[in-house]
Amino acid sequence: MRGVVMYGPGDVRVEQVAEPTILKPTDAIIRLAATCICGSDLWPYRGADAVTEPLHMGHEYAGIVEEVGAEVTTIKPGQFVVGSFFASDNTCELCRAGYQTSCVHREVLGTGGAAQAERMRVPLADGTLVATPDLPTDDLVPGLLAASDVLGTGWFGAVAAEAGPGKTVAVVGDGAVGLLAVLAARELGAERIIAMSRHASRQALAREFGATDIVTERGDSGAERIRELTGGLGAHSVVEAVGTQESMMQAIRATRPGGHVGFVGVLHDVAIRGEDYFMSHVHLHGGPAPVRRFLPELIELIMARRIDPGRVFDLELDLDQAADGYRAMDERRAIKVLLRP
Amino acid sequence: MRGVVMYGPGDVRVEQVAEPTILKPTDAIIRLAATCICGSDLWPYRGADAVTEPLHMGHEYAGIVEEVGAEVTTIKPGQFVVGSFFASDNTCELCRAGYQTSCVHREVLGTGGAAQAERMRVPLADGTLVATPDLPTDDLVPGLLAASDVLGTGWFGAVAAEAGPGKTVAVVGDGAVGLLAVLAARELGAERIIAMSRHASRQALAREFGATDIVTERGDSGAERIRELTGGLGAHSVVEAVGTQESMMQAIRATRPGGHVGFVGVLHDVAIRGEDYFMSHVHLHGGPAPVRRFLPELIELIMARRIDPGRVFDLELDLDQAADGYRAMDERRAIKVLLRP
Repeated sequence: MRGVVMYGPGDVRVEQVAEPTILKPTDAIIRLAATCICGSDLWPYRGADAVTEPLHMGHEYAGIVEEVGAEVTTIKPGQFVVGSFFASDNTCELCRAGYQTSCVHREVLGTGGAAQAERMRVPLADGTLVATPDLPTDDLVPGLLAASDVLGTGWFGAVAAEAGPGKTVAVVGDGAVGLLAVLAARELGAERIIAMSRHASRQALAREFGATDIVTERGDSGAERIRELTGGLGAHSVVEAVGTQESMMQAIRATRPGGHVGFVGVLHDVAIRGEDYFMSHVHLHGGPAPVRRFLPELIELIMARRIDPGRVFDLELDLDQAADGYRAMDERRAIKVLLRP
Repeated sequence: MRGVVMYGPGDVRVEQVAEPTILKPTDAIIRLAATCICGSDLWPYRGADAVTEPLHMGHEYAGIVEEVGAEVTTIKPGQFVVGSFFASDNTCELCRAGYQTSCVHREVLGTGGAAQAERMRVPLADGTLVATPDLPTDDLVPGLLAASDVLGTGWFGAVAAEAGPGKTVAVVGDGAVGLLAVLAARELGAERIIAMSRHASRQALAREFGATDIVTERGDSGAERIRELTGGLGAHSVVEAVGTQESMMQAIRATRPGGHVGFVGVLHDVAIRGEDYFMSHVHLHGGPAPVRRFLPELIELIMARRIDPGRVFDLELDLDQAADGYRAMDERRAIKVLLRP
């Protein structure tokens, strides 16, 4: 079968790779209806994360179950399923508390994820995968694929930031996760949603997802602008969806004392200085989003056509064109690229 | 009148200082029933914070109102009152949200606080001070004085760590704040309370305040020991009451994914590395405790003799002996020193 392999920065190839097989009795094999390229795939692509061995890329997936291991009891061949980037048993104490990405039996997907391919193996299938009630029509596939990571991650950011009725929510980062955090804040009932973006097409999508205000300033001036818009106090809730030192401090400084930062951008070379943070009175929570916690609810909203998170895919390519997709995301010509195997 | 002045590291003197006067119509003058030395007073005493001018020390206070400014309406001369280290209006949006130490009209007390004296000026008296329902008997004064800072701070740490029924709470730091965080966790209904201490007298007081377990290890081995005691997961709630890099990381690493760290030790030379923190899934909240939020409840508990936080004062001296008190705390011979003016 075909799969996407990264050999080094900027070097992405579609190759013949081995078919996945059931390795443990709790595994499932799925045939991907669609897969996609993640902002975090750009870290190794840009050389910010080392590539020490060929990486079988991709960790976002939705598709049809083809085969299950002997101990899989709830997931059945023929079902359409969505899962997340860490496999989890969904039964341990941490899963039950809603932190499936910290599951005590957590498993990463194959090296690099291996979801940018025709088929993939998913460990702990019963805990990891959520089946749709019926087979979705083709137009719903992008939204269901978005639920696998970017929607679930933006949603967790908004939940961690305690977005809700009466709240002013600011979102740092206008990638797919940031844009879907805007959508999540709206669904959670936020009163005012400030998207921070300087790109017209992303601003437009932010507005479509529910942003009431756009701020184009960044860093300390961005935080200052949020304070100006909130009576000098700062937002109640800020979602950090970038992961740099500047964006993290922008998020903390844009939040009022007693407010909440939900951070979901993978932190790279970030250090939060105690002297900066102590007086801020800001709550911090985040990390790798426990997408599994939200999947049943998100699938329901998507199947009911109440939300359309698939709108973040503004470029759709054949799997064979994956290298073009990486380039388009790297150059910020595309917000997010969907690949059809 | 007499007051405590710090001239430099290790140089504390009791001197004749100017009587405080009403400077603004919202001020009150109180005569101190008791005052005390704070762990944070040791930072300049030890040279960790620069002393660039003579500091009139002290920020913990309880006593009788002698005089109020023309705009003070609820606080009356003759009342016994307790206040906190930042003056606050208690009416702004941040105060109403429970963050009085971030009040938009926040005022620090005089240079260095000036509460280690016979009398002191308290700004924003109506917002800052809470009166006891009746004049307390003398044996209740130490407890009420503790409410002014160390009890309120330990309480905020426990609240920020979300201590409560069914929770295992660990406390990093066995100073007065840490010990009173143990007491707070018990009052908040925690199931299990682990005090981290290697001093017999402090361990004994921690047990008296409600600790169910004592851990003597520190740093990473301390965190490891907490995980061993909690089925490998870590505590639900950890209070950080020291403020160093080691203690902060000990707190984060002792907390389970999804758990909460409440940090109240003033952070000195601390940097939280994103790479360490991102995968932890730990909530962080803390800062300068909004003691005012808790004062009415704490005063009620103390007046009803339900809690006895005054037990942290294990050395009582005359104000004139303040230098001995600083030495005793610096050498850890005393947990906390009460000074009688």
